[in-house]
Amino acid sequence: MPSISNKGRQMPASPIRRLVPYAEEAKRKGRIVYHLNIGQPDIHTPQGALDAVKNFKGNIIEYSHSAGNESYRKKLAVYYQKLHIPVTSEEVMITTGGSEALLFGLMSCLDEGDEIIIPEPFYANYLSFALTAGARIVPITASIENGFALPPIDEFEKKITSRTKAILICNPSNPTGYLYTREELETLSSIVKKHNLFLFADEVYREFVYDGKKHISTFEISGLEEHLIVVDSISKRYSMCGARIGALLTKNKDVYASALKFAQARLSPPTFGQIAGEAALDTPQSYFDEVVKEYQHRRNVMVGLLNQIPGVKCPNPGGAFYTVAQLPVENAEDFCIWMLSEFEHQNQTVMMAPGSGFYATPGLGKNEVRLAYVLNTEAITNAMECLAQGLRAYEQVKELAI
Amino acid sequence: MPSISNKGRQMPASPIRRLVPYAEEAKRKGRIVYHLNIGQPDIHTPQGALDAVKNFKGNIIEYSHSAGNESYRKKLAVYYQKLHIPVTSEEVMITTGGSEALLFGLMSCLDEGDEIIIPEPFYANYLSFALTAGARIVPITASIENGFALPPIDEFEKKITSRTKAILICNPSNPTGYLYTREELETLSSIVKKHNLFLFADEVYREFVYDGKKHISTFEISGLEEHLIVVDSISKRYSMCGARIGALLTKNKDVYASALKFAQARLSPPTFGQIAGEAALDTPQSYFDEVVKEYQHRRNVMVGLLNQIPGVKCPNPGGAFYTVAQLPVENAEDFCIWMLSEFEHQNQTVMMAPGSGFYATPGLGKNEVRLAYVLNTEAITNAMECLAQGLRAYEQVKELAI
Repeated sequence: MPSISNKGRQMPASPIRRLVPYAEEAKRKGRIVYHLNIGQPDIHTPQGALDAVKNFKGNIIEYSHSAGNESYRKKLAVYYQKLHIPVTSEEVMITTGGSEALLFGLMSCLDEGDEIIIPEPFYANYLSFALTAGARIVPITASIENGFALPPIDEFEKKITSRTKAILICNPSNPTGYLYTREELETLSSIVKKHNLFLFADEVYREFVYDGKKHISTFEISGLEEHLIVVDSISKRYSMCGARIGALLTKNKDVYASALKFAQARLSPPTFGQIAGEAALDTPQSYFDEVVKEYQHRRNVMVGLLNQIPGVKCPNPGGAFYTVAQLPVENAEDFCIWMLSEFEHQNQTVMMAPGSGFYATPGLGKNEVRLAYVLNTEAITNAMECLAQGLRAYEQVKELAI
Repeated sequence: MPSISNKGRQMPASPIRRLVPYAEEAKRKGRIVYHLNIGQPDIHTPQGALDAVKNFKGNIIEYSHSAGNESYRKKLAVYYQKLHIPVTSEEVMITTGGSEALLFGLMSCLDEGDEIIIPEPFYANYLSFALTAGARIVPITASIENGFALPPIDEFEKKITSRTKAILICNPSNPTGYLYTREELETLSSIVKKHNLFLFADEVYREFVYDGKKHISTFEISGLEEHLIVVDSISKRYSMCGARIGALLTKNKDVYASALKFAQARLSPPTFGQIAGEAALDTPQSYFDEVVKEYQHRRNVMVGLLNQIPGVKCPNPGGAFYTVAQLPVENAEDFCIWMLSEFEHQNQTVMMAPGSGFYATPGLGKNEVRLAYVLNTEAITNAMECLAQGLRAYEQVKELAI
C-alpha cells in the first residue's frame, strides 16, 4: 500500500469541524446541540438572492468566465467603490468562497519555505491554506488582556527575515472579533512598505461592526496599492455560506494575472452562487441595519452571560460574530469533547471550537474557546446556561478523578 | 513592489482559455465564433436537476458537510455500484468540480518534487494542479499514429524512479477521446502494484463511449483497492459544468482522511450544485441514450469532415467528446490566433485549443489542435468549412510572407 504525502499527514483537521462526530453522536442520543462552533448564521438569506436562483431561465448550467461573470464583477466594483475601496471590475476576481481567493493569493505570492506573519489567534484554516501553498506561518501573539489588539510594531520587526513575503490580517477578526483602528492599519502599512511585503487582508466581516464604529478597509490606507490583496466573501454578509462565492481584490497586475491562471485551471466559480451573489447586491441597507442590530444584541447577551460565569473571561469584540473566551479548565478541547459526549443539561449541550486550533504557537490557547454568536438570543441564553452548568459539573468530575 | 512567486510565474495559462481575448475581439467585430476550444456542451441539463434548484425551499443557503451532503453521497454510491464501482457513501467525497478532487488527491499523495507519470497529450490543467501540489509531471508520449493508445509497459518502466509516486490516466481521454481497453488497464495495474504507486483515474467522461463499446472503470480491475483514486464530475455527464460538482472516490482510508482535511479547510462544496447533482441522479437512461447517439453523430460528422481537409489527420475517438487533429501548419497556436484575429469566412470563424498545451514535453503537439464536438452538427459543419477555408487562406498568407 503506497503511503500518503507528508503534506497530507501534516494537514491540520479543522478545529471548527473535527468535533463533528461527537456532536452527531450526541444528536443520535436525542440531545439538542447548540452549534456555537461554526459561523453558520441563522439569519435569512435576502429574498432577492433566493428568488434570482429560482428564476434562472437557462436550459444549461454553463461555465462562466474564470474570473466570474462580467456583469457581477461590474456591480461588485460599484459596491466596493461605495465603501471607499477603489477597484475596477478588472481588479476583482470572483472565487469559490473567500477560501479560494486566499489560496490563489498565497500561491501567487509565496513559494515553498517563504514566510507569512499572522497575528494569532487566527482563523484556523489559514494554516491549511499556507500548508497547501508550501508557505510557513510565523505567528505574532495577540493577547486576550487587551482584547487581542495588534501587537506592537517591534514585535513584527523582530519576526521579519529574508524569507518573509507577507503579512496577513483578518479585520474584523475571526476568531477574536477585534476591529483594527486606522492607526493600527497605518502601522501595518509602514512595515509592509519598509520591508516590501505583500499585505493580505481578509475583510469578509466588514459589514458586522458594532457600537457605532466604522470598518476601515486596508484599501483606504494610501500607498499600499501594489502590496495589497483583499480577500472577500458573500458567505456571512448575506448569510449564504453554501453559495461558495468570494472575491480576490488587488491592484497589483502581476498578482491578478497569476491568480487568473490558477482560476483558469479550476475553470469557473459556481454559476448559481454567482446568480445569487449578483442579486444580493440589491439588498437594501435596512437588511444590514437589522442584521447588525441583531448581532450586536446577541454579542451583548453572550459576552454578558460569559463574564458572569465564575472563572470565564471574555473581551467585548467590536466586529464579526465570534468571540474568544478563556475558560477555567486546563484543556478546553477535552472539555469541549466532554460537553458533547458526557454532559447534558435538560437534554441540551453546547458545541464550541477549541482555542488551540487558532494558534500556530504550540501550547497557546489551551484554555480558550471560540464561540460564534450566530444563533438567536434564546438559543444563546440556553447555551450559556448549559456552559455554566457544564463547567460546574466538569470541575466536580475533575475533582473526583484526582 | 514585491514580486510574485516562482509558482505564479511558472503556472501555465490554460491553452483552452488563453485565447479568449482574441475570441472576444472577433465577437466585438460582429463575427460568429464557433467554440470548439472548450468542453461546454450545448446539450440541455436534465429538467429534473433545474427544477430541484428552482424548488429549493430553504430560507438560508447553508454550508453542507465538508464531504458533501450525506443524502447525495448515499445516492451516488448506488449509482456507482450499478456501474461496477463498489464504493460506499463513506468512500465518496463531493468536491467543487473534478478539479478539486484531483487537487485534493495530489495533495494527499505527493510531496514537493515527487513524480507522477501521465501519458501525453493530457488535459492541460493537470499541469496546473501538479504545480499547485509541487509535484513533477513525467510524460509518456502517446502517438496519433495508433490513435493515442497506452504506450507500451516498458516505456513506463523506463520512467519510474525513486520519486515516482503515481500514474494518472484519463479514460476516456480528454483531449484524445481514447478509450482504454481492459488489457491496457490490467497492464497499468501490474505496474502500479509492482512499484507500489497510486493510480489516479479521471473517469468523468465514462458515459460517453461510442460504437457500442463499454467503459471499463479502473475500479473493475482487481487488487487495486489501496492504490486507486478516481476523479469524477457531473459537469459533462448532465451538461452542468457551472454547477461545480465533482467527486473523489477511494478505498484507501488514509487518502480519504487526508483529502477530508483539505475539504474541511475550504468548508463545503456548493449547495445549489449538490441539489442539482442529487436530482440529476434520477435522470432516465433515455436521456443518456439520446445524448450518446447525438455525440456519436457529431463525432462522425467532425472526424469525417476533418479527414477530408487536405493535410489534416484525425483518429476516430472511442469516447469523450474531444479529438486531437494534426493540421498542415507549423505552429497551430499561431494559426488558432490568426483564425480569430485575421480570418473570417462568411463572417464566421473557429476557436480551437492549440495542441502544445496538452503536452509536457517541449516542442510536441505544435501542429495539433484539440477540438470539442459539443456543438450541433450544423454548427460543426459550418466550423469545419471555416477551418478548411482558413487553412487554405493561411497557406497563401504564409507563402506571401516568404
